[in-house]
Amino acid sequence: MPVYKLTIEYNGFKFSGWQIQRNAETVQGVLQRALHTALRQPVALQGASRTDAGVHAVGQTASFSFPFELDTHRLARSLCALSKPDIAVTNVELVNDDFNARFSAKGKHYIYRVLNRSAPSPLHGHLSWHVAASLDLLLMRECAAQLVGTHHFGGFRAADCERENTERTLTDVRIVETGTLLEIHVKGTAFLKNMVRIIAGTLVDIGRGALPENTITVLFDTQNRTLAGRTAPACGLTLMEVFYE
Amino acid sequence: MPVYKLTIEYNGFKFSGWQIQRNAETVQGVLQRALHTALRQPVALQGASRTDAGVHAVGQTASFSFPFELDTHRLARSLCALSKPDIAVTNVELVNDDFNARFSAKGKHYIYRVLNRSAPSPLHGHLSWHVAASLDLLLMRECAAQLVGTHHFGGFRAADCERENTERTLTDVRIVETGTLLEIHVKGTAFLKNMVRIIAGTLVDIGRGALPENTITVLFDTQNRTLAGRTAPACGLTLMEVFYE
Repeated sequence: MPVYKLTIEYNGFKFSGWQIQRNAETVQGVLQRALHTALRQPVALQGASRTDAGVHAVGQTASFSFPFELDTHRLARSLCALSKPDIAVTNVELVNDDFNARFSAKGKHYIYRVLNRSAPSPLHGHLSWHVAASLDLLLMRECAAQLVGTHHFGGFRAADCERENTERTLTDVRIVETGTLLEIHVKGTAFLKNMVRIIAGTLVDIGRGALPENTITVLFDTQNRTLAGRTAPACGLTLMEVFYE
Repeated sequence: MPVYKLTIEYNGFKFSGWQIQRNAETVQGVLQRALHTALRQPVALQGASRTDAGVHAVGQTASFSFPFELDTHRLARSLCALSKPDIAVTNVELVNDDFNARFSAKGKHYIYRVLNRSAPSPLHGHLSWHVAASLDLLLMRECAAQLVGTHHFGGFRAADCERENTERTLTDVRIVETGTLLEIHVKGTAFLKNMVRIIAGTLVDIGRGALPENTITVLFDTQNRTLAGRTAPACGLTLMEVFYE
């Protein structure tokens, strides 16, 4: 059966996360309703990443199978009209029959944004974590580099994360500074629950001197979540892109 | 008397422009009220740019004189608290007694943002003009370069602009492309009413083939506003910085 891939941007602030829930507005819920309306039959949408409540995306992907050939441009326009203003379907394409947005994914790129100044931002506040304390950016960059590679990330996951294997590979962790905005780019093959937000919270806590300089090493050695920093707020996190072969 | 300079960020969508009005919420109005509360006496605030309704700023400046010495960090924090969430005072500094935010200004930097794709943007839509038509960016860049220099900009101003002298100098007009976002950077010594928005609207209309390629030359020759493009929507425009000596 033909399989279609969607690329999706959304304002996470408006939703209780990606995954469909009975009594809450979710991105998957809105999109499945929009698809039902556009295609006149229910479809199951498989998302690449189950983003948390409040987390944004510019490049979330999702897939569904459908027995007929569809006009992809027209479907994208319909889905935008049916799910605006807080969700936009930026692309629809026909992909191979064996494509699955979640299980075919080879990696993901997230950005965690930190606004590092005393004043909050009326224009960019919805996309960043406002940290007024001064930060040791050089030290944060050294610690970010320590995260790259294949490690056990048991110290960087939510308490209720149920994965048995905590080994994950990060291919790139870097901090891009533009004025008072720090963008923590994190690329990896797969992620544990809240992993990027705990990485961001830990780097910020190290940068402001609330955690020791050797925290990353200690976390890899002990796998002890209580020695990491806070889980940084959801609003700072944006899923930028999902990679496929 | 001591003079203080404010640097201000605001979400223009929430205000009827900068300039104080009797029956509308304006940035100047909110800030003068906040200053009155913080300083316990009324002060007159002089803004560098009278931005239109809907126009944003990250680097608007304003000045006021006050008979006493002020703790500038504390004042900045108070003004942020009193004018949040749609206005933030990002800096307060003591300047020379003869400083005036408007008359001391040597130039300004604006960015006009165009989102050039079929889908609107839930995350960045409030900061850009959504143009779905395909644009000839190479041609737009050629036309942008023609705007640089000292010219009479009578063809690029609002019908009700009352300035007698229409000669202005643009020091830089360039288009930065990041994915589907086009940022039209305009720097100049001074501007006529709606000038940047008419420049943006004209460049976009040339880019989508709705205006001839020689439009900029024709506008300089004829000074005829009706031959220019539309006034691009306010939401795409952000005042980035005001330059002083």
